Amino acid sequence: MSNDKKIFLDEQEVPRRWYNIQADMPTKLAPPLHPGTKQPVTPDDLLPLFPMELIKQEVSQERWIDIPEEVVEKYRIWRPTPLIRAYELEKALDTPAKIYYKHEGVSPAGSHKVNTAIPQAYYNKAAGIKRLATETGAGQWGSALSLACSFYGLECIVYMVKISSRQKPYRRSFMQVYGAEVIPSPSDKTEAGRRVLAVTPDSPGSLGLAISEAVEDAAGRADTNYALGSVLNHVLLHQTVIGLEAKAQLAKAGDYPDVVIGCCGGGSNFGGIAFPFLQDRFAGRQIRALAVEPTACPTLTRGVFAYDYGDLGKLTPIMKMYTLGHSFMPSGIHAGGLRYHGESPLVSQLYHDGFIEAQAYDQRQIFEAAITFARSEGIIPAPESAHAVRGAIVEALAAREEGKGRTILFGLSGHGHFDMTAYDSYLAGDTKDAPCDEQDLARFLADLPQI
Amino acid sequence: MSNDKKIFLDEQEVPRRWYNIQADMPTKLAPPLHPGTKQPVTPDDLLPLFPMELIKQEVSQERWIDIPEEVVEKYRIWRPTPLIRAYELEKALDTPAKIYYKHEGVSPAGSHKVNTAIPQAYYNKAAGIKRLATETGAGQWGSALSLACSFYGLECIVYMVKISSRQKPYRRSFMQVYGAEVIPSPSDKTEAGRRVLAVTPDSPGSLGLAISEAVEDAAGRADTNYALGSVLNHVLLHQTVIGLEAKAQLAKAGDYPDVVIGCCGGGSNFGGIAFPFLQDRFAGRQIRALAVEPTACPTLTRGVFAYDYGDLGKLTPIMKMYTLGHSFMPSGIHAGGLRYHGESPLVSQLYHDGFIEAQAYDQRQIFEAAITFARSEGIIPAPESAHAVRGAIVEALAAREEGKGRTILFGLSGHGHFDMTAYDSYLAGDTKDAPCDEQDLARFLADLPQI
Repeated sequence: MSNDKKIFLDEQEVPRRWYNIQADMPTKLAPPLHPGTKQPVTPDDLLPLFPMELIKQEVSQERWIDIPEEVVEKYRIWRPTPLIRAYELEKALDTPAKIYYKHEGVSPAGSHKVNTAIPQAYYNKAAGIKRLATETGAGQWGSALSLACSFYGLECIVYMVKISSRQKPYRRSFMQVYGAEVIPSPSDKTEAGRRVLAVTPDSPGSLGLAISEAVEDAAGRADTNYALGSVLNHVLLHQTVIGLEAKAQLAKAGDYPDVVIGCCGGGSNFGGIAFPFLQDRFAGRQIRALAVEPTACPTLTRGVFAYDYGDLGKLTPIMKMYTLGHSFMPSGIHAGGLRYHGESPLVSQLYHDGFIEAQAYDQRQIFEAAITFARSEGIIPAPESAHAVRGAIVEALAAREEGKGRTILFGLSGHGHFDMTAYDSYLAGDTKDAPCDEQDLARFLADLPQI
Repeated sequence: MSNDKKIFLDEQEVPRRWYNIQADMPTKLAPPLHPGTKQPVTPDDLLPLFPMELIKQEVSQERWIDIPEEVVEKYRIWRPTPLIRAYELEKALDTPAKIYYKHEGVSPAGSHKVNTAIPQAYYNKAAGIKRLATETGAGQWGSALSLACSFYGLECIVYMVKISSRQKPYRRSFMQVYGAEVIPSPSDKTEAGRRVLAVTPDSPGSLGLAISEAVEDAAGRADTNYALGSVLNHVLLHQTVIGLEAKAQLAKAGDYPDVVIGCCGGGSNFGGIAFPFLQDRFAGRQIRALAVEPTACPTLTRGVFAYDYGDLGKLTPIMKMYTLGHSFMPSGIHAGGLRYHGESPLVSQLYHDGFIEAQAYDQRQIFEAAITFARSEGIIPAPESAHAVRGAIVEALAAREEGKGRTILFGLSGHGHFDMTAYDSYLAGDTKDAPCDEQDLARFLADLPQI
C-alpha cells in the first residue's frame, strides 16, 4: 500500500483472458430472434456480417476466453490503463470516501471503445476479411475502429450520421488520419441511403439509418464484414479488461470497492468495468454496481424488459432487453453515446435480476459534475463519462452526510477533447435539461413487437 | 531489461530537483538588457512582473534547484510520463534503429507546457499574487496556465490572439472549463489594445500584441503578475523534468540514446528533454542533441546570434539569442507554437558553442511524418511535436541506409486533438510548404538593435 495517486500495472499484467459473465449469471439470456421469422437466430444468420470467432463468443458459456497474443500486443500500446485515486476531488468534496477512477481516456482513440475494436479487427482479419463497415454518431466508436483497422491493415468504412459529420468535423478528420473512409449518411452508396435521399435530399441522417447503411454495405460484399461498438455480448466480453485490471490495481492498493459506477448507454463501458466485480458478488461478496444514464434516455430506470428491435428499421435481431421502444427518439443531448433506446441484453438481465442499480441524471447536473472534476483532477471528461463522475460525486457526498467512509470506483470511459462545443454551451448557460417526455414514452412502449 | 513498450517510473521517482544547465555550460549567458537604457536588467526591473523566486531561478548558477513539495504533488497527477518504445514505428520504417519517445501529451493540459505552468502558479501564489495574466496564440500555453491556476486557486487572464480565438473556439472553451477568463486580443482592457482598436477595429491581433496586453495588465495591478511559457531560463529549468525522467527510464531499459531530438520554437520543450543529456556531454559522453524547426521560421538554421528584442513592440528585455529579427512575421503554418522569431538564450548559446545541431523541415514533410506515426503508434501528435517525429524518422532511415543500429530518443511534446483542422487541410491536399522569404529575412535581420 502506498499513497500513490496513480496505480499502474506492469505491461505483463495486461489481462490474458476476458471474463465471460454468461458462465456465472444465475438467469441465462433469452435467445435473440430473427426479425423476419421471429425464431432464434442461428450462427448462419450472422455469418454474412460477423466472423465465426465472434459469433462463438456471442453465445459462449465458458467463463474465461483467451485473448489472442496479437491482440494483447496491441493492447500493450496503451494498456494497462492507470487507476487513479481522486485525492484532489475528495478534497474538493470534503468527503471521507475514497474515490478511484479507471482512466480509459488514455487510449490513442480517446475512449474504452478501442478495447473491442482491436479484437474485432483482429478476428475479421484472421477470417480473411479485407474491409470493415460500421456506423458512428458521436464518433468515439468510429475513431476506435479506424485505429484498429489501421493497426491490422484493414480498410475501414464509417457511415457517419450526416449532421454529426458537419457538427464534428474534427472527429471526421481524426478517423481519416488513420486512413478510414468516412461517408456522411444518408449516402448514395446504399439502397437504404438512396431511398432516404430520394425523399429528403437534405436529411441530417440518424444512427438507425447509418446502421442500415453499414449493414447493407457489409452484407453485399464477401470481403466486408460489419462491426458494432456496443450492446452485443462479445463487445461487453472484450471490455472486461477494464474491470479485470481495476481489480488487480485495487488489490495492489490494498482496497476493494463498496460500489462500482459506470455510465451506461448500450452498456459496453458499464459492463466492462462492473462484470468482473459482479463475479465476486455471485460468489457472495458485498458490492454494489451502479449504472448511470441520462434522463433524456432513461432505458433502465424508465424502460421495460421486453423483446424489441435493435434499430428503427427493424433489420437487427429482436433482443430481450430493457428498451424505451425502438421508435424512441431521445432529445439531442450532448452525451451522444448514451442516446440508445435499448440496453445490452447482459446488463438488462442482470438489472432485472437485481444485481445492478440504475440512476438517471439531467444534463446540467452532468456538466456541473464534469467541471468540478476537471478543476480538481485536471481531466476533462467526455459528456458520457461525466455521468459516472456525477454518480461518484453523489455517492461521495452521501458518505459525507453519513459521516463514514466508503470506497468508490468509477469508470472514466473517455476524454472530452472532441466535445468542447458541449462545454462551451454549458458554460454559456445554453444547455437545457431534456428529460424524456411521458406521453412519448408511453406511445413508443406501446409499439413493441408481439413475441 | 524487458521488451515492454512503455517504460514507467514509480511516482516516487518524479524528479525532486530541476537541472540548471547554467551551472555547467562552458560559456555563460550574456546578460539581458533593459529595452530603454540598454543596461543589464536588474531584479528590481522584473519584480513588477515576476515573483522573486522565479527571478532568482532566472540567474541562478546552482546545478540543482529543489522542486517544492507542493509542486511535486501536482506533478504526480500525471508524472512521470511514459517513455515509449516505438516498436510499431520501427517496423513500419524497417529500421535497425531503436526509437523511444517521451510522451508529454498525457498531461491533462495535453502538452509539456504544464511542467512550468504549475511551478509558476505556485511561486506566484506563495508570493501573495491573486491573478496571473498571460498571452496565448496556438493555445497550449494558455491551457496549461489555466489548469495550473485552477489547481492553486488563482485567477487566470488569458489574452488570446483574436484570430486564434475564432479559429480555435475549442481551445478557448478548454481554458474556460478551468475557470480562466479568455480575452480576445486586441481588447479594450488595455492601452495597447485600445490603441490598435482605434486604428483597426477589426484587427485579427498578433502574439506580440497579446504579450503587450498581458504585460500591461500585470504591470498595472499589484495583485497580478505575468507568466511566460517559453524562452526564459526558469521556464527551461522547469522543463528539465522531461529529460531527467527520460534518462532514468532509459537506464531502466538498459539503454542510452545516440541522439536526442526535440521540436524547437522558443526552446522550452527542446531544452527540457535535451539539457539533462547535455550534462553528460559536458562530462565527455558522446551524445547528439538535435533541434527541429520549421522552414517557415528557421531561427537556428537561418537566424543570427545577436542581441534582439523579444517582441515586436520592443517592451521586453533585449536578449542575446538566435533571431530572425523582432519584426519577422512567419507565414501562418499550422505549428503555431513554433512561430517565434527568437530562441531561448540558453539553447542559443549552446547551439552557438556547437553542442546542439539544428534541422529545418517543410510543413508537408512534417504532416507526412505525423500520419506515419499515427498509423503505426496510434497517437496523433501536435503539429509542433510532429517536427520531432520527422527528425526521428530521418535518423531511423539513415540508420537503415547505413545498415547499423542507433538509439533515438525524441520528445512528443503534445497531442494533436485540438489541431485536427490542420490535419484536415493536409489530408485534403490544401497544405502548402511555406519556407521563409530570403528578401524578407535580409530586411528583418538588418533591423536589429545596435548594441
